[in-house]
Amino acid sequence: MIVGIIGSGQLGYMMIMTMKKYPIKFHVLDNNKGPAGYIADKFFSLSQYREFVDSCDFVTFEFEHVDENTLEYASDRGKLRPNIKTVELKRDRSLEKNFLKKNHFPIADYEYAETYGEAFKIAKSFGSAVIKTCKGGYDGKGQFFISPETEYKEENARGPFVIEKFINYDFEASTIAVRDSRGHFEFFVPSYNYNKNGILIYNIAPLKDHKKMITMAQKLMEKLDYIGVMGIEYYVIDNCIKINEYAPRVHNTGHHTLLGSSISQFEEHIHAVADIPIVKPELFSPSGILNIIGTEIHDKIDDIMNLGKSDVYWYHKTDIRRKRKMGHINVYGKSVGEVKEKIDKLINIVYNGDIDNYI
Amino acid sequence: MIVGIIGSGQLGYMMIMTMKKYPIKFHVLDNNKGPAGYIADKFFSLSQYREFVDSCDFVTFEFEHVDENTLEYASDRGKLRPNIKTVELKRDRSLEKNFLKKNHFPIADYEYAETYGEAFKIAKSFGSAVIKTCKGGYDGKGQFFISPETEYKEENARGPFVIEKFINYDFEASTIAVRDSRGHFEFFVPSYNYNKNGILIYNIAPLKDHKKMITMAQKLMEKLDYIGVMGIEYYVIDNCIKINEYAPRVHNTGHHTLLGSSISQFEEHIHAVADIPIVKPELFSPSGILNIIGTEIHDKIDDIMNLGKSDVYWYHKTDIRRKRKMGHINVYGKSVGEVKEKIDKLINIVYNGDIDNYI
Repeated sequence: MIVGIIGSGQLGYMMIMTMKKYPIKFHVLDNNKGPAGYIADKFFSLSQYREFVDSCDFVTFEFEHVDENTLEYASDRGKLRPNIKTVELKRDRSLEKNFLKKNHFPIADYEYAETYGEAFKIAKSFGSAVIKTCKGGYDGKGQFFISPETEYKEENARGPFVIEKFINYDFEASTIAVRDSRGHFEFFVPSYNYNKNGILIYNIAPLKDHKKMITMAQKLMEKLDYIGVMGIEYYVIDNCIKINEYAPRVHNTGHHTLLGSSISQFEEHIHAVADIPIVKPELFSPSGILNIIGTEIHDKIDDIMNLGKSDVYWYHKTDIRRKRKMGHINVYGKSVGEVKEKIDKLINIVYNGDIDNYI
Repeated sequence: MIVGIIGSGQLGYMMIMTMKKYPIKFHVLDNNKGPAGYIADKFFSLSQYREFVDSCDFVTFEFEHVDENTLEYASDRGKLRPNIKTVELKRDRSLEKNFLKKNHFPIADYEYAETYGEAFKIAKSFGSAVIKTCKGGYDGKGQFFISPETEYKEENARGPFVIEKFINYDFEASTIAVRDSRGHFEFFVPSYNYNKNGILIYNIAPLKDHKKMITMAQKLMEKLDYIGVMGIEYYVIDNCIKINEYAPRVHNTGHHTLLGSSISQFEEHIHAVADIPIVKPELFSPSGILNIIGTEIHDKIDDIMNLGKSDVYWYHKTDIRRKRKMGHINVYGKSVGEVKEKIDKLINIVYNGDIDNYI
């Protein structure tokens, strides 16, 4: 059995690293050879996309903004999982929002605008809002937070835009769920997520009172006839939830499943993609992660380990840049409180207490 | 940081697979490129042993019967972990037994003989006994079980031999323990092991009442000034224990730590070898393994997964032979009883209920 992964970044890397134990070979395609490319059984450059798809039994992707030719070629041959529609909706935020709205999923009020000037005007009419470019942008890039006090200035961002009315939410949360080709559904217990400037800093599972999130995840995956792991982000306000967005892939808020869980999101994704029966994930212990952003940690590993109940994932990227995810640290504990305490200590170790310098 | 592993079999493979997440590079040396060789950052053939050792910060091994030149060269440069004495004692069973006896560790009565005829005579004087070649032999190879009824026949085995008086033990057990360069000691909760014809078939942790095993493991590792993970096998008779043997490396009876534990033996070994602080292992859930011996499992994965709470490790060996370990299956459960039930079902799935056909 050969599984193809489009993209050779850290998410593909963790899929291969955790699933090399199965009798599966992994082929990877990308324009540049990233970490997944180095541990793949075979690496293909972008121009070889037909050969790549033809060599695989199933094809998946680690990131939704990947080469369209490859996706279409794999889709036409019936090998692409999840299906191409789930990606097409993510190519343009307005398409995703229209889809969610049309299917009666609760989301924030939003509008569409061709130009930034128009978008700014709508944002002002909402009071507080977030302007997001329809295309591209992740980890806070291409996002502009507008409050009643914000004065207009030109932004170097290409339209069109969606303008989301600001929700004064209590917190952000997410579910990692999985669905296989027979429609069988499983989920990882949702997590509490702490984002700053649009970037996930840390998260902790389990979240209590999450039934609605699971029901909504299942409904969404059924609507999309989804195969694989999906990350769904929510806003939580007074015990009500709204969907922020979904990611048609393994997700940064699911990295905590690498420690303290019976199976990780990466393994579960490959199960679903490769038609291996998916299994019920069990959370052995409350767990969470702290992202390592814009910094090295080579000289901090001793301190991290001495904290106990922790583990390190370094993504082997060579170029350390502000806002760039370089790795993450897993933590578990007897309670959510203990995990949070350890994360606070880790922020001091990794960022010398001043994370704003790095994101 | 570069860690070198002598040997490219499945044990080295699992060290690399589980520790690629750290900012460590792995170099592997072997005469033939096995599974670990394919995922190593660099592979060296046996003739390049000096270059291999010189390229690494630390050198360890996945199996004790490896090239002596490399071990000595690495030892002379202060890079070998665990130290060479731990291997030298394992090159000859009589040396290991003499060492254990001299240091007052409880072991079975034994004698030494140059020829098989002499060994047979001593075995008969013991009543029941096991004759083992001093050199080579594992997984039941080079072992001869002698009962009062056994009649003499020539065996194609090279002396000298040790003859162990047969202990009518209740069961076999083992500890996986780890010690670092500062003398810090940690242990994985011991397991109950079921062996047949000298080959481990399955094992289950945790074992109750294991304090004596841990004390003994710590004392042994201190005596040897040991760095790394060690597997120690015991006979248990009426709540008393005797050491069967030790393995100066990660051990098949520790594979259960790959599922249901906070850290695996492979990770812990690399921690110790690479001077990364070792961490206290926690057993999240009772867990065990069933070895896959002498058979494929490609068409059985669905059944294994449908059993639930299970995972597969396939060692990617090409040549399937009777008695050869091809992989293993991890299982966890709420209780030792549930793990045992699942293992019984797995024996039916993997061996069609008739394991004697494969070992």
